[in-house]
Amino acid sequence: MSKLVKFGGSSLANSEQYAKVINIISEDEQRKVVVVSAPGKRFDDDVKITDLLIQYATQVINKENYQATLDEIIERYAEIANAYDVDEGEFAGIKETFTNLAKNDYKNDEYLMAAFKANGERMNAKLMAAVLNSRGMKARFVDPKDAGIVLDDINPNAANLLDETYTNLESFEYSDDEKLVFPGFFGYTKEGNIATFARGGSDITGSIVATGLHIDVYENFTDVSSIYAINPHLVDNPYPITKMSYREMRELAYAGFSVFNDEAIIPAIKGHVTINVKNTNSPEDAGTLIVPEDEVKHSHVITGISADDRFSALYLHSYLLNKQIGGTLTILSIFKKYGISYEHMPSGIDDLTIIFDRNQASDDTIHALCKEISEAIHPDKLEWIHNYALIMVVGENMAVSVGSISQIIKPLAEKKIPINMINQGASKIAIMIGIDQEYTDEAVVSIYNQFFKED
Amino acid sequence: MSKLVKFGGSSLANSEQYAKVINIISEDEQRKVVVVSAPGKRFDDDVKITDLLIQYATQVINKENYQATLDEIIERYAEIANAYDVDEGEFAGIKETFTNLAKNDYKNDEYLMAAFKANGERMNAKLMAAVLNSRGMKARFVDPKDAGIVLDDINPNAANLLDETYTNLESFEYSDDEKLVFPGFFGYTKEGNIATFARGGSDITGSIVATGLHIDVYENFTDVSSIYAINPHLVDNPYPITKMSYREMRELAYAGFSVFNDEAIIPAIKGHVTINVKNTNSPEDAGTLIVPEDEVKHSHVITGISADDRFSALYLHSYLLNKQIGGTLTILSIFKKYGISYEHMPSGIDDLTIIFDRNQASDDTIHALCKEISEAIHPDKLEWIHNYALIMVVGENMAVSVGSISQIIKPLAEKKIPINMINQGASKIAIMIGIDQEYTDEAVVSIYNQFFKED
Repeated sequence: MSKLVKFGGSSLANSEQYAKVINIISEDEQRKVVVVSAPGKRFDDDVKITDLLIQYATQVINKENYQATLDEIIERYAEIANAYDVDEGEFAGIKETFTNLAKNDYKNDEYLMAAFKANGERMNAKLMAAVLNSRGMKARFVDPKDAGIVLDDINPNAANLLDETYTNLESFEYSDDEKLVFPGFFGYTKEGNIATFARGGSDITGSIVATGLHIDVYENFTDVSSIYAINPHLVDNPYPITKMSYREMRELAYAGFSVFNDEAIIPAIKGHVTINVKNTNSPEDAGTLIVPEDEVKHSHVITGISADDRFSALYLHSYLLNKQIGGTLTILSIFKKYGISYEHMPSGIDDLTIIFDRNQASDDTIHALCKEISEAIHPDKLEWIHNYALIMVVGENMAVSVGSISQIIKPLAEKKIPINMINQGASKIAIMIGIDQEYTDEAVVSIYNQFFKED
Repeated sequence: MSKLVKFGGSSLANSEQYAKVINIISEDEQRKVVVVSAPGKRFDDDVKITDLLIQYATQVINKENYQATLDEIIERYAEIANAYDVDEGEFAGIKETFTNLAKNDYKNDEYLMAAFKANGERMNAKLMAAVLNSRGMKARFVDPKDAGIVLDDINPNAANLLDETYTNLESFEYSDDEKLVFPGFFGYTKEGNIATFARGGSDITGSIVATGLHIDVYENFTDVSSIYAINPHLVDNPYPITKMSYREMRELAYAGFSVFNDEAIIPAIKGHVTINVKNTNSPEDAGTLIVPEDEVKHSHVITGISADDRFSALYLHSYLLNKQIGGTLTILSIFKKYGISYEHMPSGIDDLTIIFDRNQASDDTIHALCKEISEAIHPDKLEWIHNYALIMVVGENMAVSVGSISQIIKPLAEKKIPINMINQGASKIAIMIGIDQEYTDEAVVSIYNQFFKED
């Protein structure tokens, strides 16, 4: 059995956190591959390395003085290097890399930004390899370029993996007695430029590398001992999920369960890699296992409830809208023109609601989009609903338990929470409920209590 | 107050039915405008005039002997004409029109078919005007050409109204002491060719003429004394709906309530025309009123439940489907290419179900469509679900009654009927439920019993 361990930013924030990570790596021989994020916050008001690098990049683009920012970045890495007697030459290289970022040539400012951000992870992986070596563990820093992690070049700050990466990883050579340390979050375009994933990118790298190198278990170290059935800030003693299916995690992560990035599940499904979400601060806790659905057996009808209010909705009313062949086509072409992808599109016989992620566009853009749709379709009514929340109620057991929708709706009816939309798709393991933002927490807690209160 | 009366085919099937219609017209001075269908079935196994005309047209197209068919058609009109001593010259004109249909020139066979079918209504309106005149009522046959009912020329057998019709009807001149008799179902293209509406076309003509001539009440005479809360074949003593809103009727008619055509509501909404569905065989019954929603007050949470199994569904599963800007666009472009409009498109985070009216395309066409989508999108899974039923649960009160969804779902859960899809759109007066065809009647009856059983 082989394991990949991935550590998030808070697990690597300073030398004290590093100590925990070194223990975790050293105490299990099976932990062969390490994926690291950039150092995160050391305390609540602290600044993450990634944000310092964005500041550094912005100063360079604007030709402002960046020296203080650069010094602050280097100081964070130095604190760790000094604590572990890292080889001086090795640390000089890290320092030089950060300094040279301001002097290198880039294809354009977008690529500049991607390269600055990515080096937070890249230098942390270099540092981690040096620290492990200084502790007597044989470790090798692996640049994604050398492992062949290839991304597309459409948006260098939200790039997508190219499938050839898996072929490249298949032929990546390494010996059984060394630890491999990969930086998360980025790869290289075919032209050789750095490009990063969007949000949660280190989780995705962990998943890709685990699948490509045929690792059995992907241990994802965070700062919680479990994934819970509800956002743990909303109730006391939330119910911990010990095991869940890949697709349950996908559905929950889609709307607000940020502990494991939703897109990062997909490579793991491909590679049948077991995911284990664990706590860096309490590594003896079993954590949550994420596995194929046939390996899951839940005692409750629902497994978890998540919610996200990042959405907006466009409501259109027009008689015989759905008889117009090509009517929706026109609307979606306009969405495409403005670079907005839609999430869901519930429809009545004369109306259509298009739900989309509000973060994709400014208010001005959305107003322009509405205007153009209005002129193209001449609807009787067009309304932009700014604050739209989606609740996902998820459970493998829902697919076999016929009455689950009724049980889910009941507490909302009792609390008189108006439902804008309810949608059970074909997967049958999730029900999506659209409500006004203001009711989000109350709705989630009341559904949770309906199923978990007695525990 | 003015009324338009429209009679369906069964109300005009023979001289006996004609007698009831003449009584209805004569007993109320406000009944100024009459719209007629073609004579329908006289008994269960009978053939409707429209079907005889389709047979006649087909024989002409195929250069087969049509004399027996033509004779049968003329005989049906003759029976009525003879019973009411219609002027011989008048009837000779009707006979000649039918005979000449085989000899006239047409743009193509589609227009030929439209012209043959339309003359069932056209000659019946001519005959009705003659009969009313013979009974001493001053009546005038109005050809849609003379009234200016203009249709588009995209599909002569499923044409759409052009808005200029309303301007034309505004200026249509008639005197207060005459009854106007319009044939339903058809109009003329700008080129002057006959084109017909799709299904239920006489209902649409009634609505258009009532709106265009500023009629207050549109009495739609059928063979039932009321619209019921459920298909009356499914339960004993079904609950009659005395008053409902336009939009309730639209939602119910969309899925199976065929008593009043769903598209025919739209012109009436535009003209604020009150619709009154009445029974030709029992005209003293109050029937069902269809009015704006602010004039409706229901005693039940739901007003009616309808169901229709004319649908199919295409199910697609593909990871991150909804993150692909333009992915759905590609799919809908292919639907458009094959001339298929979709009805609803519920989606999960990685899947999409496209529900469409199966009657729009042959199985071969749908297979070709699936193949093309498969090649364009490369989904992980693509499945064609042939038999898909939609249930519409409709009620103005549902918009204000928060717990209604829960009550609707409960009986289905109790009967263990699996729900494929549930969709509450923005209108909030209707919930759409997708189930397998085999459960349709059981599901509808159990929901009906949940709300109406105690009555």
